[in-house]
Amino acid sequence: MGVGRAGLKESGLPDLLVIALPHPCTASFLFTDNYFKAGSVIYSEAIAKRTTKVSALVINSGNANCGTGEEGIKHAKMMAQHVADNLDIPINEVLVFSTGVIGKPLPIEKVLEAIDKATERLEPLDLKTASETIATTDSFPKFDFVRKGSLETFGFAKGAGMIAPSMATMLAFVFTNADVDYETLRSIHKEVADRTFNSITVDGCESTNDSFGLIALGDVVADEEDVFNEVFKVSESLAKSIVKDGEGATRVIKVTVKRATLEMKAREIAKAVASSLLVKTAVYGRDPNWGRILAAAGSTEFPIDPFSVKVYLGNHLLYDGKPHPKAEKFAKKYMEENEEIEIVIDLGEGKCSWTYYSSDIGYEYIKINSEYRT
Amino acid sequence: MGVGRAGLKESGLPDLLVIALPHPCTASFLFTDNYFKAGSVIYSEAIAKRTTKVSALVINSGNANCGTGEEGIKHAKMMAQHVADNLDIPINEVLVFSTGVIGKPLPIEKVLEAIDKATERLEPLDLKTASETIATTDSFPKFDFVRKGSLETFGFAKGAGMIAPSMATMLAFVFTNADVDYETLRSIHKEVADRTFNSITVDGCESTNDSFGLIALGDVVADEEDVFNEVFKVSESLAKSIVKDGEGATRVIKVTVKRATLEMKAREIAKAVASSLLVKTAVYGRDPNWGRILAAAGSTEFPIDPFSVKVYLGNHLLYDGKPHPKAEKFAKKYMEENEEIEIVIDLGEGKCSWTYYSSDIGYEYIKINSEYRT
Repeated sequence: MGVGRAGLKESGLPDLLVIALPHPCTASFLFTDNYFKAGSVIYSEAIAKRTTKVSALVINSGNANCGTGEEGIKHAKMMAQHVADNLDIPINEVLVFSTGVIGKPLPIEKVLEAIDKATERLEPLDLKTASETIATTDSFPKFDFVRKGSLETFGFAKGAGMIAPSMATMLAFVFTNADVDYETLRSIHKEVADRTFNSITVDGCESTNDSFGLIALGDVVADEEDVFNEVFKVSESLAKSIVKDGEGATRVIKVTVKRATLEMKAREIAKAVASSLLVKTAVYGRDPNWGRILAAAGSTEFPIDPFSVKVYLGNHLLYDGKPHPKAEKFAKKYMEENEEIEIVIDLGEGKCSWTYYSSDIGYEYIKINSEYRT
Repeated sequence: MGVGRAGLKESGLPDLLVIALPHPCTASFLFTDNYFKAGSVIYSEAIAKRTTKVSALVINSGNANCGTGEEGIKHAKMMAQHVADNLDIPINEVLVFSTGVIGKPLPIEKVLEAIDKATERLEPLDLKTASETIATTDSFPKFDFVRKGSLETFGFAKGAGMIAPSMATMLAFVFTNADVDYETLRSIHKEVADRTFNSITVDGCESTNDSFGLIALGDVVADEEDVFNEVFKVSESLAKSIVKDGEGATRVIKVTVKRATLEMKAREIAKAVASSLLVKTAVYGRDPNWGRILAAAGSTEFPIDPFSVKVYLGNHLLYDGKPHPKAEKFAKKYMEENEEIEIVIDLGEGKCSWTYYSSDIGYEYIKINSEYRT
């Protein structure tokens, strides 16, 4: 990897990262569904559709290259071309990512100079430095490394609750040293993304730049299930660290809906509860407010039975068709003493379950998001 | 109408309202879609399905009669029976509504005594008193009266941004003195509800008790279009007053999406922008952040074209495929000086439009919703 500075961050810290892979690697990329996409996303999504091999990634932080019209796409292509020239690789094996403020043109000359600097002296991948370089409002670097025998899986990410001010975006890159064909990698990637990065929320806002890459380095032969499990572990760890860094968050909220008839039902209900502002402010106030939890759970298109649904906070049963007021005192204590608060909604009707991660919301969130830019 | 006190409000203020109609009136009711419904909603929805005529409404405030199991439905029925007995009308012409804290059993004896008090001395409908009696966290009463020739339309409501603490609910009742058959009334009711009460949001949370009734007193013959327009006026006025009373709100946000190909597209995009926490906190900070507006507009399932969509704040064009940084200063001034902030998103592709009302969100919201109950 190589690091450079284009002066995009107010802090003046490094803001440009080049990851040069040892050879063209099988890779899968997922991008934001938002229709208001950054130039870098429009460019990279088009490239990723045509190729399954990448040789390099280039990521700038501090400027989202979004809302910048056609010029934004040209700038992304210029970045890719510059990396390709410097590393002597084909341009269609280079993907470009950006994160930061919306609506400002990239100072492209400075960015290209920073790319020169970054590609001049390449060093082994350092996950912590990589995360720090692409960070924006993050308060800590996000990376993880797991090993199972000779199978190594690692990754780094940035994102403070998916929605740092002005859409500062979630970016995550996970690497496995396994040899995996593209179709297998793609299917692992989609399933893992759904269960991890697509199952976290801070305020339901979707960025213009969100991207998640999974790259197979191809060094070892490994069982597909092992690859899935290890990639899942690293991705879940990165996703949770993003929630933990949610702006002003004091608690991670784990919402599990279990015994649903459909996976989609479990997922939608978990999402509704994890996204509910009333639930999030209740957790901030350490209030075991099962009424708000059930009101959120009942708001999806999927029916719940108010006379049989069960709600737990940790191990404390608060409602099972009727309230249990005596349990509230213990649930409140549980909320005060634990950093991760688990809400379990037991529908008691089937076999499917889903977990969503969220964070509480307090004064700090309002402060960060109302005072930014002004 | 008659007013009573069952001691359901901490303030000790009147909390029970009986509206006795002069005769059985054609009436249409719409209830929350939430599956976690209050006992009163379950009861009244079942009655309203079977009848198109009502003679009385009874509404208690301070207790939602929700999460109270089968007993909650029995209590609602007891309230209806008591009103029916006292007014000598059939029980299936009485509807019951509740709003307030979730999960506490109704002190039914006290409620029945308050009904006695309320029905003992009936007075002409006073809209302000009616709104005050059913209010919970509302900071001002909500009512309106309009007249067109002999056609009179009036209504009252309660609700502080649809989501007062612990789901304090939106309740609204609108009356027209026109003679309207049930099918016509129903169709007016649904269309008006979609364009008014279903097009406001404070935090996207849906209450367990939301209800909206439209009652035709049948005194005058009127043109259907006039009835629609007048009912719309009163309903829009009540809906806007609820948004204005959003917890801690300092600005009403009017989001209009115009020139869309589909009405549903205009509506979904307006809803996404009006619901976006990042947009709401930006308005709180008086920040003309068109990037957040477009990121929210692009997050629905309907495509927008980032190279042609236009965004206005008031009359100030901020984006039309490229940013207009010079307009931001004027837009900021507009946000500082006006109580109602209009965001216009012009898709430039069709003829459909939709307006959504919302409010900004600040520290006060967090305070109210995290400190309540604890």
